Amino acid sequence: MANPTAAILLIGDELLSGRTRDSNMFFLAQELTRLGIDLKLAMMIPDEAQTITDTVRDVSGRFDHVFTSGGIGPTHDDITADAVAAAFDTPIGVRDDARALLEASYTPRGIELNESRLRMARIPDGAALIDNPVSAAPGFSIGNVHVMAGVPRVFEAMCHALLPGLASGRPVLSQTWTVMRGEGEIAARLGEIAADFPDLAIGSYPFSKDSVYGTNIVVRGVDGPQVEAALVILAEAFPA
Amino acid sequence: MANPTAAILLIGDELLSGRTRDSNMFFLAQELTRLGIDLKLAMMIPDEAQTITDTVRDVSGRFDHVFTSGGIGPTHDDITADAVAAAFDTPIGVRDDARALLEASYTPRGIELNESRLRMARIPDGAALIDNPVSAAPGFSIGNVHVMAGVPRVFEAMCHALLPGLASGRPVLSQTWTVMRGEGEIAARLGEIAADFPDLAIGSYPFSKDSVYGTNIVVRGVDGPQVEAALVILAEAFPA
Repeated sequence: MANPTAAILLIGDELLSGRTRDSNMFFLAQELTRLGIDLKLAMMIPDEAQTITDTVRDVSGRFDHVFTSGGIGPTHDDITADAVAAAFDTPIGVRDDARALLEASYTPRGIELNESRLRMARIPDGAALIDNPVSAAPGFSIGNVHVMAGVPRVFEAMCHALLPGLASGRPVLSQTWTVMRGEGEIAARLGEIAADFPDLAIGSYPFSKDSVYGTNIVVRGVDGPQVEAALVILAEAFPA
Repeated sequence: MANPTAAILLIGDELLSGRTRDSNMFFLAQELTRLGIDLKLAMMIPDEAQTITDTVRDVSGRFDHVFTSGGIGPTHDDITADAVAAAFDTPIGVRDDARALLEASYTPRGIELNESRLRMARIPDGAALIDNPVSAAPGFSIGNVHVMAGVPRVFEAMCHALLPGLASGRPVLSQTWTVMRGEGEIAARLGEIAADFPDLAIGSYPFSKDSVYGTNIVVRGVDGPQVEAALVILAEAFPA
């Protein structure tokens, strides 16, 4: 059976302006590989409500899991929760369970649960909360869409809370064979080997180090013995 | 007049598996901001011909510029040039001008221009070459789609060759005001200020440092005096 598929939506002008370098996608991509969930698409989109709604609607219909990052804080530019609710035609408002989580965190520290902070308790009807052990304000899952924070430490904590409960698949194994020859020299034989293993993804990644050209050949697949078999063939074809 | 818009397509399984952390999008996003080209979308997609073709067709119709990265080397998994040609229903084959560039680089070094390396001279009919001062094999522009290499050093060199000739706009100016208060405290007033400057993008980015919460307020826009005016208001509302 094929592994479940996934898309990641990174929401935020700061990514598209080049102010912030993504780390959430990079983190989650590795986690999904480990879980056997095939990440097929990552998108960075701006803080625009209609764009978020349209994109969520599109990708949630095409992939088994959709993960979003960003836009669920207390400020005016935090519009993800409302945009996702719109994508599902679902009402959204302050929910008691989310409010209780904020109160339990803020009240003992003497922090007022003002109107802005209460925005973080706006959860679409029927959504399940995603625990936030870092800063209390929860994420949520609605349908196959999992809405998480943009701050990397919070995003990662939410992933750790969310991922174990998701339908996953067979972990994708990866092995790298490094050849100290340029891609152009090994390409013909490598192409034949790749064709002999249609169930594996065999990628070729050139590098140069101290003016010497080399190629990392990465073999990926869910079938361990097959990955090993390809490695043996590669080692024969391109001795170290 | 509004700035031109752009999308970036990062093509490669190694990004989606989490093996490689993107740096090309991060680099180009900053360059585009400087040039006044509004990056509205970045996508990471796998090495799948049909996905590349469909995505290029879609985004090239929606944005003024499309930049791609990855998949133009000599190996079996380098399928971007053919997939882009298919998106434009354009024939593709080894072109003399591209072949001459490869020969000029390889022949003096005694490197054979074999069939694999010749794949890098496959250019769609009518495309303009993008110079590659690092490793000779050119990128190309067809319509509004600019096809570049995935290796960061080559990608960046191609950007430097390409970008000065593109239709650009007014550079987007950015100023940051840092407030040593949490987002939840400043959100209400910040929202009012953002509403007073509809032509600016005012983003709010929380951070915590040594257990103290703070917020970076980032003001972005093409009108310098307006950006400055917003900064003055922010400094009054949230004194340092």
